[in-house]
Formats: sequence, structure tokens, C-alpha cells
Amino acid sequence: MVGCSASSSSTVLQPPALAGSGLIGYDSRALDGARFFLFSTDGFSTMANKADRVKARLPRGFADRHPHDIRATGEMMEKIRAVYERYGFDPLETPLMEYTDTLGKFLPDQDRPNEGVFSLKDDDEQWLSLRYDLTAPLARHVAENFNEIQLPYRTYRAGWVFRNEKPGPGRFRQFMQFDADTVGAPSVAADAEMCMMMADVMEALGIARGDYVIRVNNRKVLDGVMEAVGLGGEEKAGRRLTVLRAIDKLDKFSVDDVMLLLGPGRWDGGREGEGDFTKGAGLDDAQITRLLNITGWNEQGSGATGVANGLTVDNLSRGFEDSPLVVQGCAELDEIQLLCAAAGYDIDRIRIDPSVVRGLEYYTGPVYEAELTAKIPNEKGEIVRFGSVGGGGRYDGLVSRFRGQPVPATGFSIGVSRLMTALKNLGKLGQDPVLAPVLVTVMDGDMEAMAKYQSFTQRLRDAGIRAEMYQGNWKKFGNQLKYADRRGCPLAIIQGADERANGEVQIKDLIEGKQLSAEIESNEEWREARVAQFSVKEDELVEAVQRVLDAQKRERDGAAG
Amino acid sequence: MVGCSASSSSTVLQPPALAGSGLIGYDSRALDGARFFLFSTDGFSTMANKADRVKARLPRGFADRHPHDIRATGEMMEKIRAVYERYGFDPLETPLMEYTDTLGKFLPDQDRPNEGVFSLKDDDEQWLSLRYDLTAPLARHVAENFNEIQLPYRTYRAGWVFRNEKPGPGRFRQFMQFDADTVGAPSVAADAEMCMMMADVMEALGIARGDYVIRVNNRKVLDGVMEAVGLGGEEKAGRRLTVLRAIDKLDKFSVDDVMLLLGPGRWDGGREGEGDFTKGAGLDDAQITRLLNITGWNEQGSGATGVANGLTVDNLSRGFEDSPLVVQGCAELDEIQLLCAAAGYDIDRIRIDPSVVRGLEYYTGPVYEAELTAKIPNEKGEIVRFGSVGGGGRYDGLVSRFRGQPVPATGFSIGVSRLMTALKNLGKLGQDPVLAPVLVTVMDGDMEAMAKYQSFTQRLRDAGIRAEMYQGNWKKFGNQLKYADRRGCPLAIIQGADERANGEVQIKDLIEGKQLSAEIESNEEWREARVAQFSVKEDELVEAVQRVLDAQKRERDGAAG
Repeated sequence: MVGCSASSSSTVLQPPALAGSGLIGYDSRALDGARFFLFSTDGFSTMANKADRVKARLPRGFADRHPHDIRATGEMMEKIRAVYERYGFDPLETPLMEYTDTLGKFLPDQDRPNEGVFSLKDDDEQWLSLRYDLTAPLARHVAENFNEIQLPYRTYRAGWVFRNEKPGPGRFRQFMQFDADTVGAPSVAADAEMCMMMADVMEALGIARGDYVIRVNNRKVLDGVMEAVGLGGEEKAGRRLTVLRAIDKLDKFSVDDVMLLLGPGRWDGGREGEGDFTKGAGLDDAQITRLLNITGWNEQGSGATGVANGLTVDNLSRGFEDSPLVVQGCAELDEIQLLCAAAGYDIDRIRIDPSVVRGLEYYTGPVYEAELTAKIPNEKGEIVRFGSVGGGGRYDGLVSRFRGQPVPATGFSIGVSRLMTALKNLGKLGQDPVLAPVLVTVMDGDMEAMAKYQSFTQRLRDAGIRAEMYQGNWKKFGNQLKYADRRGCPLAIIQGADERANGEVQIKDLIEGKQLSAEIESNEEWREARVAQFSVKEDELVEAVQRVLDAQKRERDGAAG
Repeated sequence: MVGCSASSSSTVLQPPALAGSGLIGYDSRALDGARFFLFSTDGFSTMANKADRVKARLPRGFADRHPHDIRATGEMMEKIRAVYERYGFDPLETPLMEYTDTLGKFLPDQDRPNEGVFSLKDDDEQWLSLRYDLTAPLARHVAENFNEIQLPYRTYRAGWVFRNEKPGPGRFRQFMQFDADTVGAPSVAADAEMCMMMADVMEALGIARGDYVIRVNNRKVLDGVMEAVGLGGEEKAGRRLTVLRAIDKLDKFSVDDVMLLLGPGRWDGGREGEGDFTKGAGLDDAQITRLLNITGWNEQGSGATGVANGLTVDNLSRGFEDSPLVVQGCAELDEIQLLCAAAGYDIDRIRIDPSVVRGLEYYTGPVYEAELTAKIPNEKGEIVRFGSVGGGGRYDGLVSRFRGQPVPATGFSIGVSRLMTALKNLGKLGQDPVLAPVLVTVMDGDMEAMAKYQSFTQRLRDAGIRAEMYQGNWKKFGNQLKYADRRGCPLAIIQGADERANGEVQIKDLIEGKQLSAEIESNEEWREARVAQFSVKEDELVEAVQRVLDAQKRERDGAAG
């Protein structure tokens, strides 16, 4: 019996708070490291009968994350974080739940939250929702602490967000975003800075210049255009979308077909009653002409199909110089381009592109999007243009929902999983995998032997070497080596009764190495050779293991180099 | 007008998916970097009327996290992670939501989840809950992937967990745990390893040997004792708790009073009818004597108050040698102690202590708890014994809820916020604060000047120097310096029209330094001195800023050393 001293600490033997509730357990909630349990004893101490068994299953649209993915994401996020920090941004995080009304998730004339969010009623009857992005909670934070916050307020945050939507392949209901925002920054200089920061993030991740582009647009420009052709106002939102879709068809349809889509509508078959009918935007001929002119179609030949979308700032400001909104929007885009150019970010990295429509109706000014232009193979080996990995814009209205004054703000989100998929496909991740631990095997289960194995393991760890003692059923030695193999352990430590008697230990090189050669005779030769298995004195264990690991590393580096 | 090339990418101008829904916005959900918006235009583009304004407020029991806290937590978790990795554990993460039944959160005979968890019904009528710890989701993961997982399975994870409880000071409804578990490890060697890993975590965080202790107990021991005094079985859980509470009173109450609490109950006033009545455990005299004997009270003098709790393994196994459960439990504790000692962890670091009752009803074997024994000042400056910062134990029943076979497992949680509070009070955190950025001020708003400021900022960043250009309203220069001051910027860059004409820039040292001295005459002297403000050529900007930062660092280091 090992001696055990008495404890006089009254913090240790605390009475449970759940007495008499029928629930059993020690509610050490104040210790937030405590594991929690409200189960009855029987639920745990006995095995479930077949009928009582719960089916273990992930919720629809959710996923577990595995070591490689977690490590690679961590590595990627560390690089992004370093860029944000260099730009003077500080971390700020909000909780995963917010009051639904502060997220803006009540639709007019409804008393339940919007379906797109996960919501539940708190015990004081207030609705709570899981955040669906990181921007709405930031706006809440800024409004709540407005008097304490020093503007401009530069912050960044990574976090999980949730969408209560139908899941699908690659479409999850929980995913991670990594945002940066400047609140209290009225000038487009702040938008220009965001664009440069996104470009720097791309390069920090190893994406070559030319393999990405930051596209920039301005909501004011298209707002002005829509107003000018009579499509302003909330009630015409649907027709505005029809117009955007029609213009998007210019590279596939003939100009005549696009004109039909902008006007009365179009029959798939080409004639009335033939095929499906697509409703048009209902514009008249003058409006259609005015709109089409800004796409540059007429510079490319009338009647042609596959007309490139020429929706440029030049064309826009030429065609709508009577619209103050268009003129102002174009001037802002010019300013962004100029500031970026002055800082060394040319048109190949940050490009003004009025065809970007991401979030135009949400943002209030400039919008920007990071796009991977490199043609990279996807999981199926198909070469595809990857597309957007993040974006954002100016949202001067988000904080003012809470306050009587406008609060200018601009920022962007990076889609962490999507960007990681891109980096994986580009071969920019997982270059330096974490080595699996050295396995200390168990040959004998008596206490003397176990104590030896434990001390070997701990000595390796103390030297900074990743190591573990086999913790499964040790009686089948083959299972231990199989485990080491499947886990990718670099080497195994073995000590049977004979070695123990001699104070020795076997080291088995599990990565293919030179076989123990009969030719090697001198001690020096033997030490320098990488042999598949050899024996050392117990007190030379750490040094010998380190030698094998170093040799393995040299081989890996040689193979890679 | 800056030239803009036409875009021919059809991925850019995508039509929104929400047309006709009355909701406006570009549903770029497939791009999970997209910010989300289902608001109507008016909700954002106009300011809220006073009556319509939403009150910005954190939900009850939730908190925002600020830069210092986030950075300090990150630093702490990185150190913990390194220990887990060295022990051969790999990261594994599960989602924040699970099906409620897989968490075991339905109580018998109820069709709603337990109140302690945040739950909501999915659209397929299944109940989902936010996880309340990281152990139940791990059990689900293991059961779901049992055929693919190589046992023993060593994993770690940090993550937010949620408790739907009444919040209070320091009592949050969302907090972070950092867990490590080995699944498929039947031997107490795995429990011993967990104890050693907790000890290593404490030391990796800078907590001195002697300032912490890992206390170890075994559920089997107290189970056996309770059975032996007739308190086995689920229906006697309440009486078992009464017993534990009564024994805990030994250091405050007289032995006679404790005997009343173990027996018929006790009146606060000392006589029947006087003061409040505390119900007793209802044990008879023989049972009470048997129980009290294991506490060692009789070695310390009968009738004395403030008897030290002598609930030791020796006393236990002496008093209950007829109980196979007690005997087995004590043998396991001996084995743990032996293995720890063999690896160099003596009784001052890992201590067998049968008075630990954390989660005894939840765990199925050894339990362990990391306690800070150092007397450290709390936020109010009071010297207190900090207590537990984490703990865990063996839970062989958790996975078998899903399966027809037992799956032995052991692991622990660290309460991240609580541990961080402890480290803060110990002065072990925040030693190396992140420097605030260099501020490039804005004296003139014309494009030529702005482009200059932007390029200065970017050149500093390119050199790895944290820098930002002032993004607020630049017209009041005093506001910019006030901003720099409140933000703690080390220095400011200033360029007015005159300097710009000369190709020069002013550097203002914002940390108190030597004043520009009239004595300094030579160029060399001037360069070497730290002056409050000086002028350099534009192309010497980066070098000069670096020089000032270096000088500031030397002063900081000098002051600290």
C-alpha cells in the first residue's frame, strides 16, 4: 500500500448541488473545466440493451474535423492572422449566440425568427439565435460599447457561423469565417486598404501573383444605373435581379435574346409558345438600349452571340454622366485604384470590375471579392477556375440600426474551409506533416515492467520527443505493431524480460531503413548505420532514438529535395 | 478615369438565387466566405427611427472577448497543445451541435430535452442541442466511426461548450474547455498517463512544482464503501450525497454533529426545534461507526472539532477489506501511484486522495483533478487557495450507450477561462504584449498626399512593421494624436505639404524619450539620440522607424530587467 496523506482542503470534498433532484452527479459548474453529467447512474454503468441503444450519428449538415485538416487550417489561419496584425488590426470575438433581434433576423410582420437561422427561446421569452456571420455581432458589439470604443476601430476575428439551410455536398450548416473590419472609417482609403490586405493574405498563403485577383465594384454605380432606367426602390428589386441575370447571359446568348430578357421576356424555343418562357424585366426600348450600351456589346458587333461583358467604369460613366450616383461611384472606384497603385498594387492584383454583384444590395458603397484565377485540379482531377474565396464591402448602415447616427464601416470575410480546399488543390498545404509518436510497446504486464515502459516514455517526452506507451490490450504483440504501422509511428521501443535483466532496450526502426547487416563489425560502423532493429543500454535510449529520428529526417529531406 | 478591363468570367456576374422572394440579396452561400443578408434594403440604407431602433445588448450570460484576453488565451492554449502533442495525442474536433439523444440529454419519461442544455427542433422534427461538454460528442464520434478508428485512440480538442443555466458573476453560459482523451485503453496505465500529462501542462504554463497538485481517487472505492453500509443502488443516491456532505463537515463540526448528520439529522441550534433542521443520511450506529473510522477521526481525538479529513487509502482498505470493490479500487490507486513514481512524478505532484468526489457518479474508475495550491491574490487582492482548474476520469460506459460492447476510455477537461484567470493572478500571462501599430497620420486629403501616406504605410508593413494609416476623419489632427495615444502607438509618421515638397517625413516618438536637445550638433550624435520628433528623407523612413522601435525596445527591456 502506497502511503497517502490526508487532505485537509475543504475545496476538494464539496457536496453536489443536485441532491434530491433525482439526478446524480457533482455539479462542479463553477469549475468550468468540469465535465458535466445529468445522466442516471444506470445509463452509464451498464451497457445499453439493443432496443435502448441510441444511434450514433452526426447531425445533418455538420462534420467532424480530423487531424490533418485541423493542423492545416491552424497553419493557414496563423498566416492570415499575421497579415491582419501587420495591418494594425486587433483580435475581438463575440459569443456564438445573440438575441435574434440584434442580428436583424425578424422579418417584418412576423413574430418568429427567419428560417435561415438556428433559433430558440430563452427562459425569459427572448429569442436567441446562433450567429450566421461575424458582421452582425460586430455591429452589436460596436453599438453596445460605442462610448468606450476609440474609432476608427480595427478588429479581426475567426469563428464558426451557422446557417439553418438544407445541407448538400460541400454545403455545411456550420462553417468558419475569418473577418477583418474597420468601423468608423468614412473614406474609401479604408476600402482600398481592405483590398490590399486581401491581396497580402493571398500571397502570405503562397498563392502566386497572377493566380488571384481582388475585384472591386461599387454599389452606387449599379444603383445609379438602375435608378436611371426607372428601376429604383425596394419594390423593383425583383426586376433589378432580372436585369443582372440578363446582362450575365451576354456571353452565351445573342444580343437579341438578351434584349428580350430585358424587355417582354423570352421563349426558349425562339418563338411564342415554344419551350419554356422566361419572364423579362419589362424595360422599354430606350431603357434597353441605354443599358446595353454600357456593356460594350456594340463595340463587338451586333447580333453576335458570346459577346464579352464590357461592363466597365469607362462605359458606365460615359453612358450615365447625368446620374450623380453613377458619377460618385465611379470616382470612388478611381480613388481606390489610385491608392492601391501608389502602394504598389497594380491592376493584375486589384482590379476595378463593375460586373461584380456580390452583396450589392447589402453593402452601401465599395464591394470587393478575392478570386482565385489559377486553373487548379479539383478533387475529381478536373481543371477548374476556383472562383471566390472571400469578399466584403462597405456597410455604413449596419451599426446605425441601433443608433441615431451613421457609423461608416468596411470589412471582409474569408471562407476558411473553401480557402483551405483551394490551397490543398494548389498543393500549398500540409508540406510539413506532424510526425507520429514513438511507440513504447508493452511486452509484460507486471508492475516492474510497466514502470520501466512508463519511465522510457516519459524520458523521451522530457527530451521533446513525441512518444506514447501502448495503452490497448498488450497481450497480443502483433496488435501493437499493427497499431504502430497504421498510426505511422517512426519507431518502436521493445523490452522483454531478457533485455530488462540486462538493462537493455530494443529500438525498431519502422520506416524502411537498412537491414541489420552481417558486414558491420565495428562499434562505430554499427552506430552509424541505420539498422532495422538494434539494442542499446537503457540510459542511452533517448540519444539512440534521436539518432534514428534524425536519420529518418535526413532521408525524408533527401527524398523531398 | 482609370482603365478597367472587361471581365469575361461568368462566375462573377451570377444572378441572385432569391429573386421574387421579396428578400433582396445575392445568395452566395456556396461561397462560405460570403457575408449573409436577408434584410430588406430599407433596413440598412436608412437610419433607424428612434422607435424602430433595436437595443444593442449581449445575451444574458454571454461575453465579448478583448484583444489581451484572446492573445493570452491563445498563448496559453498553444503551450497546452504542445504538451498534448508530445504525449502522442492528435487533434480531433466535433461540431458545436449534436442530436440531443446522442448527448444523452433526454431524461426518462420526457419528450423534451433537459433544461440544462440549449435545444431546438430541426425541420425534420429531430431535437438538436448545443454541446454542454466535449466528452459526449467524442463518444458519439467514436461510436459512429468505430470500424475505421484504430484503438487506442488518443485525441485532444479545444472548443466552446454551452450550459443553459442561470448566469451569475463569473458564471457564463458559453465557455471553453480543452480536453484530452484516450479511448480503448483498459488499463489504469492510461489514467496514470493522464495525471502525468496534467502535471506537465501545469509546469508548461509556468506553475511551479509545489504550487499545484493532481489529486487522484477511484469511484470504485467509495462505491464499495457505500454498498458496504447499505447505500448502494440508484434510489439511494440522495443519501449517498448526504453522507459525502457530512464527512466534508469534519473539519468544521464536532464529530458528534457529523454523527447526527450521518444518522437522524441535526438541528442548527444544537437541540430539537432550535434553528434549522438538516436531514440526516439515516444510517444506524454500526454503519456510522464503520464510516467514521475510515476518516481517521479517532486518531485525532474524539469530540474535537476541526478534525482533519483522514479519508486515506490505508484507512479505507483497512476498514473495508471485505469489500471486493474497495480492495480493487485501492489496488488501482496503488498502481497509478507506482507508475507515476516510476516516471518521476512523486507524491507532491500526483497524490492519491480518496476525498476527491468530482464526478464520482459519472466516472466508472479513477478520477483526477488538477488543483492550484498556491495562495494567490484574486481580483480583489484577497489571498485565496485557487482550487481546481480541470479534471477528469475513466468513463467506460459512455461509448457503450451506442454499442453492445464496453469501450474503456479515460480523459480530462481543462477549464480554459478559469485556468487563465489563475495564470493572470499568478503573473504568468501577458508578459510580452503585442506592440500597437505605427500610425501614419493624414495631414492633407488630396489624392497625391493620400497616395503618399498609403505607400508609407505599405512600405512599413512590407518590412514586417505593424502599421496603419489613420482612417477616421483626418481634418482634426489633434484627434489623430489622441487616437495614437489611446491606442498606445509607439510612433507617428507625419508629412505636411512642406515636407512633401522636400521629399521628407517627420517621425514622432510617442513613447517618452529624450527631447530634441540643442546640445546635439553633429549628425551622428543626432542620429543616435532618441529625439521626440525628427525628420528623415522619405526613402529612409523604414530604417528610421525601425531604429526608434529598437531603441524603445531596449528601454522596455532595460526597465523590465
